[in-house]
Amino acid sequence: MTGELRVIPIRGIPELEEGDDLAELLVDAAPELEDDDVLVVAQKAVSKVEGRIIDLAGIEASEQARELAADTDPRRLEVILRESREVIRARPPLVIAETRHGFVCASAGVDTSNAKGPDTLVLLPLDPDASAAYLRDRIRVLTGADVGVVVSDSFGRAWRTGTTDVALGVAGLTAVVDLDGLRDSTGYELHATQIAVADEIAGAAQLVMGKLDGIPAAIVRGLRVRGDGRGSDLLMPRERDLFR
Amino acid sequence: MTGELRVIPIRGIPELEEGDDLAELLVDAAPELEDDDVLVVAQKAVSKVEGRIIDLAGIEASEQARELAADTDPRRLEVILRESREVIRARPPLVIAETRHGFVCASAGVDTSNAKGPDTLVLLPLDPDASAAYLRDRIRVLTGADVGVVVSDSFGRAWRTGTTDVALGVAGLTAVVDLDGLRDSTGYELHATQIAVADEIAGAAQLVMGKLDGIPAAIVRGLRVRGDGRGSDLLMPRERDLFR
Repeated sequence: MTGELRVIPIRGIPELEEGDDLAELLVDAAPELEDDDVLVVAQKAVSKVEGRIIDLAGIEASEQARELAADTDPRRLEVILRESREVIRARPPLVIAETRHGFVCASAGVDTSNAKGPDTLVLLPLDPDASAAYLRDRIRVLTGADVGVVVSDSFGRAWRTGTTDVALGVAGLTAVVDLDGLRDSTGYELHATQIAVADEIAGAAQLVMGKLDGIPAAIVRGLRVRGDGRGSDLLMPRERDLFR
Repeated sequence: MTGELRVIPIRGIPELEEGDDLAELLVDAAPELEDDDVLVVAQKAVSKVEGRIIDLAGIEASEQARELAADTDPRRLEVILRESREVIRARPPLVIAETRHGFVCASAGVDTSNAKGPDTLVLLPLDPDASAAYLRDRIRVLTGADVGVVVSDSFGRAWRTGTTDVALGVAGLTAVVDLDGLRDSTGYELHATQIAVADEIAGAAQLVMGKLDGIPAAIVRGLRVRGDGRGSDLLMPRERDLFR
């Protein structure tokens, strides 16, 4: 598929506020961007500049939120429920939910703001593909480079411990590489014919991003994955899903 | 966590046979290995040299295998059942099973041999951590380099399409980085405090390995993850698992 890959952290991004020009901040901080680079940006950074922040002061918790909260703040669970289309599993206060976008993840992707304390929550972008496309377009304007963009987040998995970063939003690259038409002569393999490359790219970027270092973005260089994939390509259609 | 990361494919590995010295073949083909490199090797390569190959000619299918096979070869399903501790979900002929090691994956990790046609199946290594440790020790003998080793495979996921590569066997590196003791002052985050770095490393390597190019291994260089993790660190303990 490719030669050597480089994964380059982008350091020196300041604490972000609503309305900040994230693309410009990334371009200023990054080494020179090249065509076919994939820029991976943490969801939290995108959500902050898009104003997807909510203060718990204004929230009233429903009965369901109180039940799911156990001994934690029920207003937080209320926000999670508002972001959810469906609660998939719950072990209070842990909730695995399907978001309105179709992502299945802990807390419907709702997270605490590191900067603003426990009463301020960060929600997922309303449309992560649109967020990725906006960043991509803005970077092309600023630098001329035709890059791919992935908006990433850390998701837990069924059956395995820990999180890996996955792609919520995708622009300018293929999200899933389909080897079906290319399978070898034995042609018998039932699994492993579709590779979720955008998720693997997000995971590779996480290895250099680090939650504690305040590195919200990385460049993955050396792939040839230009395409028009979307984050929704990575969502298992409900009718094919064995795990609902 | 780190500076820049490089992911370097190892090309030129010949078709493998039982008893081949895989470590020596990798060392001969790889650019010079360095301390703290993580060498990612595809499970299939490891299984082949370990003789984890089975010919369907000698297999008799049980009733359960016939039911699960739908219109495919029931002997293949018989082999999958023999590798399984438990069938988690089935939509014949697709079976999601827990292997005897505790991995939950399609077909209990049983795969067709590309080289030998549809009647020859490749099974997972009996003990992927031992496989990784053996490769690590042998590489130290051959080169003096203290590398980490990951034995990887492509697994599907609940709720998401496509596969990502994950770590089955681990030697010489931390499998899961725990940020719990390090969380920031708000201290409220319930998820994303444990990062499955060995899985992200496997996924990053997959991006350069490619199933069709016959590249069964890659080096991930630039991480500082030396440790004594095991593949089993990545398995969700049954009592904490919400998805059985």
